[in-house]
Amino acid sequence: MTVATPNLTTVPVPPSDSRERVKQFMQTLQDEICAGLEALDGGGQFREDSWERPEGGGGRSRVIREGNVFEQGGVNFSEVWGEKLPPSILAQYPEAAGHGYFATGTSMVLHPRNPYIPTVHLNYRYFEAGPVWWFGGGADLTPYYPFAEDAKHFHSSFKAACDRHYPQFYDVFKLWCDEYFFLKHRGETRGIGGIFFDYQDGRGDLYNKGPAPSGPAGQKAAEVGIVSDLNWEKLFAFAQDCGRTFLPAYSPIVERRKDTPWGDRERQFQLYRRGRYVEFNLVYDRGTIFGLQTNGRTESILMSLPPLVRWEYMYQPEAGSREQELYDVFLKPQDWVNWPTA
Amino acid sequence: MTVATPNLTTVPVPPSDSRERVKQFMQTLQDEICAGLEALDGGGQFREDSWERPEGGGGRSRVIREGNVFEQGGVNFSEVWGEKLPPSILAQYPEAAGHGYFATGTSMVLHPRNPYIPTVHLNYRYFEAGPVWWFGGGADLTPYYPFAEDAKHFHSSFKAACDRHYPQFYDVFKLWCDEYFFLKHRGETRGIGGIFFDYQDGRGDLYNKGPAPSGPAGQKAAEVGIVSDLNWEKLFAFAQDCGRTFLPAYSPIVERRKDTPWGDRERQFQLYRRGRYVEFNLVYDRGTIFGLQTNGRTESILMSLPPLVRWEYMYQPEAGSREQELYDVFLKPQDWVNWPTA
Repeated sequence: MTVATPNLTTVPVPPSDSRERVKQFMQTLQDEICAGLEALDGGGQFREDSWERPEGGGGRSRVIREGNVFEQGGVNFSEVWGEKLPPSILAQYPEAAGHGYFATGTSMVLHPRNPYIPTVHLNYRYFEAGPVWWFGGGADLTPYYPFAEDAKHFHSSFKAACDRHYPQFYDVFKLWCDEYFFLKHRGETRGIGGIFFDYQDGRGDLYNKGPAPSGPAGQKAAEVGIVSDLNWEKLFAFAQDCGRTFLPAYSPIVERRKDTPWGDRERQFQLYRRGRYVEFNLVYDRGTIFGLQTNGRTESILMSLPPLVRWEYMYQPEAGSREQELYDVFLKPQDWVNWPTA
Repeated sequence: MTVATPNLTTVPVPPSDSRERVKQFMQTLQDEICAGLEALDGGGQFREDSWERPEGGGGRSRVIREGNVFEQGGVNFSEVWGEKLPPSILAQYPEAAGHGYFATGTSMVLHPRNPYIPTVHLNYRYFEAGPVWWFGGGADLTPYYPFAEDAKHFHSSFKAACDRHYPQFYDVFKLWCDEYFFLKHRGETRGIGGIFFDYQDGRGDLYNKGPAPSGPAGQKAAEVGIVSDLNWEKLFAFAQDCGRTFLPAYSPIVERRKDTPWGDRERQFQLYRRGRYVEFNLVYDRGTIFGLQTNGRTESILMSLPPLVRWEYMYQPEAGSREQELYDVFLKPQDWVNWPTA
């Protein structure tokens, strides 16, 4: 790939069977992840609800509950279509006006029972409307207790996936993840991040339509410049590779932590920190808010919320504790790939 | 009072000591409510944190925890001032441009332990900027188990307070409450409502700047017409009366329910329904979202969130159960004042 001057009027064209191919991949990803998680759990099984959307499309929502590892987890596939474009999309892509749209994606949130196992989120999505198309997605990890080797493994896995497609993908998408999964009212990242990308439409601006062009992710993308040969096939291959990176990025962390004994102190801290997950999803997450405001399937959208959550006024971690270390080190953006571990 | 044609250019003028008088009232209201709640609880005591806002002003946050009646409750007083008006207020009142602003208020949320006692919320607030001023506020009740006599008592108390000031206040403000405390994504009211009013600036439109002029509250206000002699003193007297109506509206309900035995079934349902409170406050509540987005004191804003909350995918109440009755009757707007009770 080469870096060239921008040519914003030329949008690469998707193949004629783009919708079907991406949909098939999103369903396969859901199947592979559910099978992998059931094996990892060694007990719990996913229950599936299929649903249809009156305006067009539908989905498969799968939930695992009270497993050996997972207190609750949800993996959703959906594909929706319609004639009336949401205003938020028209604002971003005026050239989509007058076209019907198609959107498909797979998303997942897992809430393990053992507080030493991190909560994790994944989402990959694809959108089309007339001449407009893009890929978006990512995965991010939210530990309750600080283990640098877990953070390093998760990030290194996604960096390797990114590097197979373009040498600067990880640099930009890691920073975009830190920016997106940030709780402004707490001054905390949601966790140790991962990767996040959106509006990857082949025009080659890696931070395309990002909300903070002068922030670290926007600046890094500007430094990288326009990536001139990012066509549809290349971005689809990249999204698939990221999706399939989830299990090898997360499973070893579960294996490493699942037999660590824990007690009431760790449980209470986990329940408290889960409150931040609720705050992020309901206050900031664009997918959640968009879904709730546009008549999405509420039960599927809110499957991301934890099964049990605690709030405590003025909680402060004990000085010098592991909980304090989480706040001091793991709730701030860090260069996890290069973190020194024993 | 009389109903006349609107004269929107004439805004009644507040007295010169308006800010001090309202602030004093808001502090007194906090004191009276906290004293009343401690007596009602018979064990728990409020702990106070005073705080200052770097940009101007501050507050007193009071929390009761692990009481006999109240699992957690918060009563906040605040007064803030500044030079830079929030854009949302400028959009509503362009004539406030260039003036410093002052805002004061008292708010409260109580989460009782016994699932037969309803959760309750109250908020009264006052705003001034140059020639612009208004009162807003209200109180609403969120039962977990359905008792029509409780709903009727709560509404009748606030109707009596309203009626002492203007015969149609209750009709409009009851409907505005049903409209405001509504979870669109669930198709449910937050509870049985109460009263809610905003932007009462003396110009006499009881649904002034309400978001749905063609909804029931807007239509009722249009029917009532412009109330021509609502000056500052009259609205302040009304706000005070509403504030002081809270204890007699709520205390008898607590007394009636606090010794009712309950078990795990009731506790689980209470924890589940508390999730709706979180969803409302984080997704819809303007005060919460505004506070979080404008650098408010996060711990005070989120004191409204319950101490323990549960989410459950696809929960359905058992047919014919008390839980089902809550959904069927109490999570829809009802004419509680005229409800037939034994």
